[in-house]
Amino acid sequence: MDKDQIQQDLIKIVGKSRVLTHDLDLMYYSYDSSFLTKLEPKTPYAVVFPHSTQEVQRIVQYAYDHKINLIPRGAGTGETGGCIAINGGIVLDLASWDEIIEVDAENMQVLVRPGVIHAHLNEELAKYKLFFPPDPGSSKMCTIGGMVANNASGLRAVKYGCTEQYILGLEMVTATGDIIYTGGMKARCIKNVSGLNLTKLMVGSEGVLGIITGIRLRCWPKPEARGIAMAVFDQLDDAPTTVLEVYQAGILPSGIEILDSSAIWAVNQFKPEIQLPDAEAILLFEVDGNPPGVQYDGEMIKKIAGKRAREVEWSTDPQRMAELWEGRSVTATAAARIRDDGSRIFAGEDISVPLSRVADTLRSIRALADQYGVQVVNYGHIGDGNVHTAPVINPENPEEVEQVLKLVHEIHLLAIEMQGSTTGEHGVGVVRRPYAELEHGKAVQYMQRIKTVFDPQGIMNPGKLF
Amino acid sequence: MDKDQIQQDLIKIVGKSRVLTHDLDLMYYSYDSSFLTKLEPKTPYAVVFPHSTQEVQRIVQYAYDHKINLIPRGAGTGETGGCIAINGGIVLDLASWDEIIEVDAENMQVLVRPGVIHAHLNEELAKYKLFFPPDPGSSKMCTIGGMVANNASGLRAVKYGCTEQYILGLEMVTATGDIIYTGGMKARCIKNVSGLNLTKLMVGSEGVLGIITGIRLRCWPKPEARGIAMAVFDQLDDAPTTVLEVYQAGILPSGIEILDSSAIWAVNQFKPEIQLPDAEAILLFEVDGNPPGVQYDGEMIKKIAGKRAREVEWSTDPQRMAELWEGRSVTATAAARIRDDGSRIFAGEDISVPLSRVADTLRSIRALADQYGVQVVNYGHIGDGNVHTAPVINPENPEEVEQVLKLVHEIHLLAIEMQGSTTGEHGVGVVRRPYAELEHGKAVQYMQRIKTVFDPQGIMNPGKLF
Repeated sequence: MDKDQIQQDLIKIVGKSRVLTHDLDLMYYSYDSSFLTKLEPKTPYAVVFPHSTQEVQRIVQYAYDHKINLIPRGAGTGETGGCIAINGGIVLDLASWDEIIEVDAENMQVLVRPGVIHAHLNEELAKYKLFFPPDPGSSKMCTIGGMVANNASGLRAVKYGCTEQYILGLEMVTATGDIIYTGGMKARCIKNVSGLNLTKLMVGSEGVLGIITGIRLRCWPKPEARGIAMAVFDQLDDAPTTVLEVYQAGILPSGIEILDSSAIWAVNQFKPEIQLPDAEAILLFEVDGNPPGVQYDGEMIKKIAGKRAREVEWSTDPQRMAELWEGRSVTATAAARIRDDGSRIFAGEDISVPLSRVADTLRSIRALADQYGVQVVNYGHIGDGNVHTAPVINPENPEEVEQVLKLVHEIHLLAIEMQGSTTGEHGVGVVRRPYAELEHGKAVQYMQRIKTVFDPQGIMNPGKLF
Repeated sequence: MDKDQIQQDLIKIVGKSRVLTHDLDLMYYSYDSSFLTKLEPKTPYAVVFPHSTQEVQRIVQYAYDHKINLIPRGAGTGETGGCIAINGGIVLDLASWDEIIEVDAENMQVLVRPGVIHAHLNEELAKYKLFFPPDPGSSKMCTIGGMVANNASGLRAVKYGCTEQYILGLEMVTATGDIIYTGGMKARCIKNVSGLNLTKLMVGSEGVLGIITGIRLRCWPKPEARGIAMAVFDQLDDAPTTVLEVYQAGILPSGIEILDSSAIWAVNQFKPEIQLPDAEAILLFEVDGNPPGVQYDGEMIKKIAGKRAREVEWSTDPQRMAELWEGRSVTATAAARIRDDGSRIFAGEDISVPLSRVADTLRSIRALADQYGVQVVNYGHIGDGNVHTAPVINPENPEEVEQVLKLVHEIHLLAIEMQGSTTGEHGVGVVRRPYAELEHGKAVQYMQRIKTVFDPQGIMNPGKLF
């Protein structure tokens, strides 16, 4: 169908002010944070900003009637090309549909539209002493809709799990234009085992089943206190062993982060004033709870980590905690600066492996990086085996690009070999599709058939997930 | 197909010792714990005890070729008729396939076959200082496979969530005989967002999609300490208000239970030595964590509950905790004994409502019970709004049966009216099927179509869920 015609038709549905049609505007939508979209940008036919479920429904019905692809998008912070119109289509930009419909504090839940920003939601919830625990690095930009679509998590998944754990129900529009409610049409309850769990099927479905238009989200009481411990190791293997020993002591930290020697070096290059100790690995433990409980956990962690670590520091002082945490929080930025002519790219950056294989995995990644001549910085959520590798290359150099693509392919294969997954929290999108069969075998056929239930014509975010 | 022929064919597949064919044996399989199956027992053609995935596959292929219904069953502790061959078929009794394949303590997970008993699993995990938190009342009998099929929970769902939260992956046989692995074919990682979440779709699917043959389950570090508070209220409404105030103080108890006046009366009739105080409601809070953290929470709960309660008692002494908890733990049994000629029946026993509607719900249930002349005892997991109503009737009296069936229908409608669900943890099975459309609307059609993906002929536990 003619692109101009599609643009004109969309304007009829939502009005001129909420449709983008100019090439320059559309070009912006050919990117997310993935390296792939830098290499192969693809523009949509049009971008539309729906602000009601009925508008979404009308757009979907129009697309269904004319067999046009539909690609939902949040803030575009994804790292897999998941929100890109790789085969043309209409992008539904849901980021400006950001209403917090109701904070139902009495029932420990909140109703939101997909565009609400994560940090903004937690600011609102804090007024009621509640919070939505998942804590992605992109908190200040990413949308709740995007988090649901990708089952996002971040620093606190160790104790608090991923987004799925908090989603009580969804309003969604399927590819045929049906508006359905998962988790009960009008339900406000917390526990509900009635029917097939469509809610959890939708979480992490990356837009291939339908458009999420409303989210009912469970909140938790915000713990009163917090503390951070930093442990410094001369032997890489001592880090995962310490993590296990902390668990075995009955402690469940809210987060456990690792910086390996490459990340320590990068942080010290970027911000020498942080003065991270030179070491094979640094672990950061965050615990939360009530004040005496946090203190007790901190002392236990100090004692346990002290058996293997060169030094351990524990603090509940807000300023000192911020300093201790800074090493971790600047890592992503630091990685980008280790080469003047280099950029940190997002590719092969999100593998998940069993805790027992983390040390081997980090060593293998370093060996592979040497083999392909690519500089990498490794950090991540070691508490649940989620390793983030940041390759730093000059993206203008075709040879470097070729080498890094080989490297990230090997990293993905390594993850599967280590009995892990190619993606712990960032999702599959376009870039990890080639590994779907390898990870899931015949189950992929069932996933494809489930897609057909919601999307018989294959117009919903095609080319993603599998 | 001829019943004798089916029995003979099954004997060829698994051997004579693992097939039941006698009418008396089969009669046992016409019951679970639901009232419905007492009213309308239905026997299967045969019962088979598979002990390997390949045996399950061969049975499924045989059933598929001859279009025979298949009904998976665990310990039969379900309360919805979910494991009954209501239209004939083969029951797969998985309870004796109870191997704990591996406790992978290093990776905080365990691999089990479906027949492992919940209490037994936690005994094994305790050796590694780990535990599987969901805590159903039938812990000593119910199987992990049954818990997965029903997304079971129990006393600790407030803090720890339901079974689904712990299931990392499943091995299953679909109705066409495919063996598939959800959550990664060989994965041992904890975090994984690759592909559609078939694992969570399977949890709570009550056997309508396929037979679960293997379960990869996440464990948590077992907290060191525990404490229990009992608060006694003269006003029913003060109980849910207190629950909310405890949450608002940043406290997340592991369990919050309620006994209303009917339950208090029943317990005191049954075991006068417990001497529960006469009151409109009793709340029991369980908190767990490290010793000073538990103590702090306990003192906070005492303070908060003390504002509205007539009396509050807090203890971390094991013997006193057992005494305080006893009122709750004998409630189900006590209910059964309030009438000499009566039985506690399981029907309309598991509604879930928003916390803000618990008091209204309890009042409405009492009024309905009076209206229909049925004695009821109310208790439940108030922390997540899950109310258990125990009707006590003489099941030999047709008039009482008629009245109680009208009452439980009203209770189910009440749940939906209160923006809740007809089932918080026991599942839909046969008995709550009539409410599927009312709860889920058009979403039911999508559930049915998803079933067809796994089970094109409709032989997997037909007549259940929707």
